[in-house]
Parts: sequence; structure tokens; C-alpha cells
Amino acid sequence: MTGRSQVINVTKMRGNLRETTEDSVAIEEPLEIRLGYEDAGKRRTRSVSITMRTPGDDEDLATGFLFTESIIRSPDDIAIIKPCDGDNTLRMELEDGVDVDLDRLQRHFYTSSSCGVCGKASLDALRATGLEPLPAIPAQFSRDVLVDTPGRLRAMQETFAKTGGLHAAAAFGSDGELLVVREDIGRHNAVDKVIGALFRAARLPARDLGLMVSGRASFELMQKAAVAGMPLLAAVSAPSSLAVELAREFNVTLVGFLRGDTFNVYAGEERIAE
Amino acid sequence: MTGRSQVINVTKMRGNLRETTEDSVAIEEPLEIRLGYEDAGKRRTRSVSITMRTPGDDEDLATGFLFTESIIRSPDDIAIIKPCDGDNTLRMELEDGVDVDLDRLQRHFYTSSSCGVCGKASLDALRATGLEPLPAIPAQFSRDVLVDTPGRLRAMQETFAKTGGLHAAAAFGSDGELLVVREDIGRHNAVDKVIGALFRAARLPARDLGLMVSGRASFELMQKAAVAGMPLLAAVSAPSSLAVELAREFNVTLVGFLRGDTFNVYAGEERIAE
Repeated sequence: MTGRSQVINVTKMRGNLRETTEDSVAIEEPLEIRLGYEDAGKRRTRSVSITMRTPGDDEDLATGFLFTESIIRSPDDIAIIKPCDGDNTLRMELEDGVDVDLDRLQRHFYTSSSCGVCGKASLDALRATGLEPLPAIPAQFSRDVLVDTPGRLRAMQETFAKTGGLHAAAAFGSDGELLVVREDIGRHNAVDKVIGALFRAARLPARDLGLMVSGRASFELMQKAAVAGMPLLAAVSAPSSLAVELAREFNVTLVGFLRGDTFNVYAGEERIAE
Repeated sequence: MTGRSQVINVTKMRGNLRETTEDSVAIEEPLEIRLGYEDAGKRRTRSVSITMRTPGDDEDLATGFLFTESIIRSPDDIAIIKPCDGDNTLRMELEDGVDVDLDRLQRHFYTSSSCGVCGKASLDALRATGLEPLPAIPAQFSRDVLVDTPGRLRAMQETFAKTGGLHAAAAFGSDGELLVVREDIGRHNAVDKVIGALFRAARLPARDLGLMVSGRASFELMQKAAVAGMPLLAAVSAPSSLAVELAREFNVTLVGFLRGDTFNVYAGEERIAE
């Protein structure tokens, strides 16, 4: 396993001072995910993704990616996950009989609607995968738990403390406990790692857990939370328009600008207790 | 053209206060890029990319993407760029005779090295495209210009001011002037837009211009700067390990944590004057 940060020489400019010293940077390396599966009685292998990520929890990353892309549906689908050809390639072998629709990976859903490529088509496509609005449970998360979560998450971010350069994501319960925390150079990777870990622990759909992310809430992150059945996504920064639409359409609570003791709620306000 | 932000209802939680009001969020919509080209005497069209982006400067985004992926090399390669099937699809028709190697878009370079998938292979692949280290010009950018740039960029970020939710990128001269400023929900998109605008203005390679980005400096952004021949990349936040390696390998100056009057230099320090 490659490390998550490395020490390099750096020149720090502080006003008129110039000092050469050592500092840590977050590691960024490509990860290739190869999928082995049965097709008409034959075993096949296909490279399905190459993504830049921070090493660590690669099994979770691959699992979360394939789950949120609707390629796998149950932990039982997975026969084995193992590194191959070094640290940056992971091979996931699915059990015989698992029905794999690799067309999904083409993200054809963006263009599957007659209205062309648009945000609405993205939402329609998500609905076409069978995703349904989440049930509303009033007062599921308290205000106090929410405002405490960024601090708890920050305290767990080992690599961020060293490098200032990593996003983090966490799954947390209504009591505020962080069940899974993951870091990565890419926010979507950090989220895939969290969801992958929950998936492998047979904890999905996670109707009782919120998802906290550093940085912003994009469509992609909102989609991953919804697919994982998580009723709340909380972000330190701003949400995008399409993230808000998705949250409202699928009744997921969306919290943004969660800083200090303040935050904004963009959807699903009834889940938040005073 | 769709707007870059939209007003939505939001509940703001401020301590014990809960207020429902209106606020702006950055628009996120998919953009499909279709490429028309000549292949053995026949015109062909292929969808080459679907990416989530903030609408605006889509022609620049598509141009910058195709240029930094080494699909197009000169503004003369482009016959026409026009929207088709609505606001979220762009068609770029190349001139007859432009040699298109779409294999590049498979990002096969990540796996083309015998060492497997790794950061080094990514650098080797970049070298294989013909990219060479940039010449060192001492004292090309002054410390004062650098520390002023984030403020100048922020002042130009109209949509960020409204939404707090957009990344920005800018090309700037050694006198500090911002020549091109672009915003997007994705940092790589903002950079593609800047480079696309320079490309279309026949300003590449831009050996005289620095590239400023909000947020962090990843491998992907560093690669885009290097391909555009830009001698300096400055980021408000942290660089990744592979971004540092790339900068040192191709002699691009890399500045990180550019805040207030302080910054770090990770590569190419000789270009920075006191």
C-alpha cells in the first residue's frame, strides 16, 4: 500500500521571507479497476475505470464506485477483490451468475432522454434505475449533531492535518457517531470509499445514516448518497443547482455551508430537529 | 444559454434561529461534446465527452478539453463549433484532413507503461505526446504580482460572489493583468475554459502567462498548464504529490497555498523574483 502523503522540499514565502523547508503533500496516483464477471458461461475481464485517487481503502473505493454506478447490488455479488500488477490496479471478481450491465458505465443515462442532454434527463435516468424517494422521518437528525459533525470529521482527518490537501467524507448516525471516515484527493472518491465500506459491511441502504462531505455538494455526490439510501447529505460548502433538484426530487435532506453553528437547508427540512 | 446561478428557497440555521429565505446556487448541468471529423474520406461524428459543468463559455470548455487531451493542435483545426439539440450539447466540426487520434481519449497512457498503472507511467505518457520541459526564465513573475492575483481573481468572480460555489481559473501576465477569467463548478472545467479561450485566440503556447486556480493543484490541472506551455501554476490551496512531480519533471513553476502575502513554491523557484 502506497502512503497517503509524502514529504517534499518546499520554499515558503512569508512576506519578504523565503525559507526552504520540508512539507507534506497528499499522494495522487491513478487506480485502475478491472471487473471479472461471467457472460454466457464464460469468465470475462474488463477494465472499467481509471481514476486519480489518494491510495488507501482502494477496495472500498472500487466497491463504492461499482455500487453507486449500479453495477453491483449486494456484497454477495463479490467473489474476491485483490490487487494485481502492483499497487494501482484492483481486480474485482464477481460471483458466477451476477448479471452485469456494463452499458451503465457509459453513463448513457445522460443522453437517454428525448429532451437531450440536461439535468432533468440525469434525474429521469436515476429514476429509471429504480431509485425511489426516501420516506420522510421527522426530526431524524438534531441541529446540535449537525453543527458538531464537521469538527468531528476534521479531527479524524489525519492526512488533511499533514497536507491541507484532502477531501473527506463520513457516514454518521443520529447520535453524531462517525461510523466510517475516508479521505481522498477527490471528493467523489472519498464518498465512494465510505459507501463502499458500508456496502461491504452489508449496511446499505443506510436509512439511519447521514453523509458528511468536506467541500461542496455536487450532483454526483448527491446521487451517490441517494443510491446508498442515505437520508441526509451535509456539506461544508455550497451545493449545486442539480444537487438541490435531486435532493428535492428524491426527498433527501441537503445541508450546505455547515460552518460554526450555522448551516443552510436546501431540501428535506423536516428531518432536522431543533 | 442557461444562466450560471439560480435563486432557490433555503432555510438558514443561525444558532437557534431558523429563517427561510432566497439564495443563489451555482448551476450544474451536463455538457456533451460531439466531434465531427474526416476519416478515410468520410465525415464521422462521435460523442467524446460528457461532463458536469456550469453553463457558459462552453465553446472554450470544449476547445480546452480537446486541446489538452491532444486531439486538436491549432485553432485552424476547427471548422465550426455550434450548439446542437439544445443548450447542453456542443458539436465541434474539424476541418478535412485533420488527423484525429481518438485513442488518446481512452487515456490509454495511464496503462501504456510496462510498470503498470502508476504516477510515473502518467508522466511517461505525457512525455510520449512530445511534451518537453519548459525553458527556465529567471525572475519572470514577481512576488508582488503573485500575492495580488487571488484578490484580483476573486474580484472578477461574479458567480462565486452570488453562490460561494464555483471554482475559478485565470491566465495572467507578468504585470499581473488577468487576460482570461473563467468560472465553473469543476476546477478542471474552469481551466479547460481558460486554455480553450487562449487556444482560440492563437495565444498558445503561452510561455508568458501564469495560470491561477482557486482550490487545489492536481495532476490533471498541472498537465493542462504544461500542455498549454504555461510556465507557472498558482493555487490557493495544496498541490498533490503527482502535481509536484509533473511540475519538477517539465520545469513548470508550481505555487501553492497562495493566501495573504504568503505562498509555497514546489518547483521552478527561479522564475519568481523578490
